[in-house]
Amino acid sequence: MVYTLEQLSDLEQIRTLKHRYFRCIDTANLTELAELFTPDVTIDYRGGHYKVSLSGRENMLEFLASSFHSDALAMHHGHMPEINLTGRDSASGTWYLEDVFISTMDRTRVTGTAIYKDRYRRCADGWRIAHSEYDRIIELVDRLSDDVAITSHYLRNVGRRPEQRSDMSRFISWAERQPVSASQPRDPTHPQRS
Amino acid sequence: MVYTLEQLSDLEQIRTLKHRYFRCIDTANLTELAELFTPDVTIDYRGGHYKVSLSGRENMLEFLASSFHSDALAMHHGHMPEINLTGRDSASGTWYLEDVFISTMDRTRVTGTAIYKDRYRRCADGWRIAHSEYDRIIELVDRLSDDVAITSHYLRNVGRRPEQRSDMSRFISWAERQPVSASQPRDPTHPQRS
Amino acid sequence: MVYTLEQLSDLEQIRTLKHRYFRCIDTANLTELAELFTPDVTIDYRGGHYKVSLSGRENMLEFLASSFHSDALAMHHGHMPEINLTGRDSASGTWYLEDVFISTMDRTRVTGTAIYKDRYRRCADGWRIAHSEYDRIIELVDRLSDDVAITSHYLRNVGRRPEQRSDMSRFISWAERQPVSASQPRDPTHPQRS
Repeated sequence: MVYTLEQLSDLEQIRTLKHRYFRCIDTANLTELAELFTPDVTIDYRGGHYKVSLSGRENMLEFLASSFHSDALAMHHGHMPEINLTGRDSASGTWYLEDVFISTMDRTRVTGTAIYKDRYRRCADGWRIAHSEYDRIIELVDRLSDDVAITSHYLRNVGRRPEQRSDMSRFISWAERQPVSASQPRDPTHPQRS
Repeated sequence: MVYTLEQLSDLEQIRTLKHRYFRCIDTANLTELAELFTPDVTIDYRGGHYKVSLSGRENMLEFLASSFHSDALAMHHGHMPEINLTGRDSASGTWYLEDVFISTMDRTRVTGTAIYKDRYRRCADGWRIAHSEYDRIIELVDRLSDDVAITSHYLRNVGRRPEQRSDMSRFISWAERQPVSASQPRDPTHPQRS
Repeated sequence: MVYTLEQLSDLEQIRTLKHRYFRCIDTANLTELAELFTPDVTIDYRGGHYKVSLSGRENMLEFLASSFHSDALAMHHGHMPEINLTGRDSASGTWYLEDVFISTMDRTRVTGTAIYKDRYRRCADGWRIAHSEYDRIIELVDRLSDDVAITSHYLRNVGRRPEQRSDMSRFISWAERQPVSASQPRDPTHPQRS
């Protein structure tokens, strides 16, 4: 199978769209994030001890801004895209995530991997994320040892401060049973059962 | 140098082939893995304290299914491809791996990096992996602390159970000297000296 | 927007240029590194407790060879490129780094992420890195526990031995205040305040 120039350009632009997404969530770049989703975007993240389900661009931006806040160290690296063009203006994509989330409040650390299934739509001003869901492959939770020094923390300056954050309970539901061992403290603003 | 449409399409398809490989080994997707190799594939992995050497698609599938089993947490992320088209129907590729393997039986954890050298062949139904070898760059072995909670474990449900696993001693040879410190327990089904 | 064949080829070659860079620094491949920069390359790395600033290919090669030496375990994985062609022979690029640096001398470990902003220039023999800068997003420093066994260490054999390393104080400046906690030992040859 030989792609056309337009198809190869679409693949390039769809990959870059998702690359921007990951960079912007870890740097709380809400201005640029606002350009990446369709207005009717739907989200369904099935984590280890949480589920995120929401729809609409405004809700997504609110969720991201209140999740990756000034007390969070966040790394979201999306790898190994498998993009399929499903129509002239639509595409689907599979990505393999590695992520780290550390709350500097209680030093809880979540590390994990997940496989994304996305849908993209071509809009007047370019490709946008129309749907994104993932399933966890690995998830580990522990507490960052006191011997670990935090020597860079970008979100501290640009992420939302406590008084600016939304109640996210309308976006997040919790597993029936909390699988995290009792020794793990909780950050109430992060997707963990409170 | 300017690529043709066919060459750019080949590069795209070869990258996606390897992306599928990494996703499928960590999710024990044997059905899809069966489509990724030539029948005469050859494998040569030079790890820190093990070597894997085998040939033939059936052996490769058996090795993968018995390695990434129901007691394993596995992450294999292949990065930064350098693909060279070496003929109309052949190509070579360099990839840089980051991997994590945790045995939930004894909580042994292996983390590492490696550089792959692959060869690909165009078959009737698309590009296939014909040869894959790697050398380790970093390899660390320790034991997951009891304070780490495992909150997602995808392979637990889809990976092979103990009674389904093969004896893999025909595929794996061990370093003369066991470099892992005496404090490390061993998972006998994982590539470590027993 | 639809790219031309030449533009798609340029994007491909620029990505591969940077992929080679990351592979070669972690394997001390100075021969290949010498082919990757313009003679007037400029570098500006803003780490958590260090800054690297230098110009000129010879200085860059000297810096890399003395940084990733025989007592270092190094992983530099550059992810999620966003490449813009800014002229027929010039381009810019954004990359998202994950890196690990362990000194085997004192077992100090630095893990982190950073966002690169690069500029590339087409030269007679292909694309070259003309400028590279990054800002840290996360940086953590701790000491590798004695329970961690190092079972592969590629740079031990190919990296510069102590007597071959340069004084790098002309390339590195240190933060006013050392943010690393007092319990962290230092490797004097690595970018940390001595």
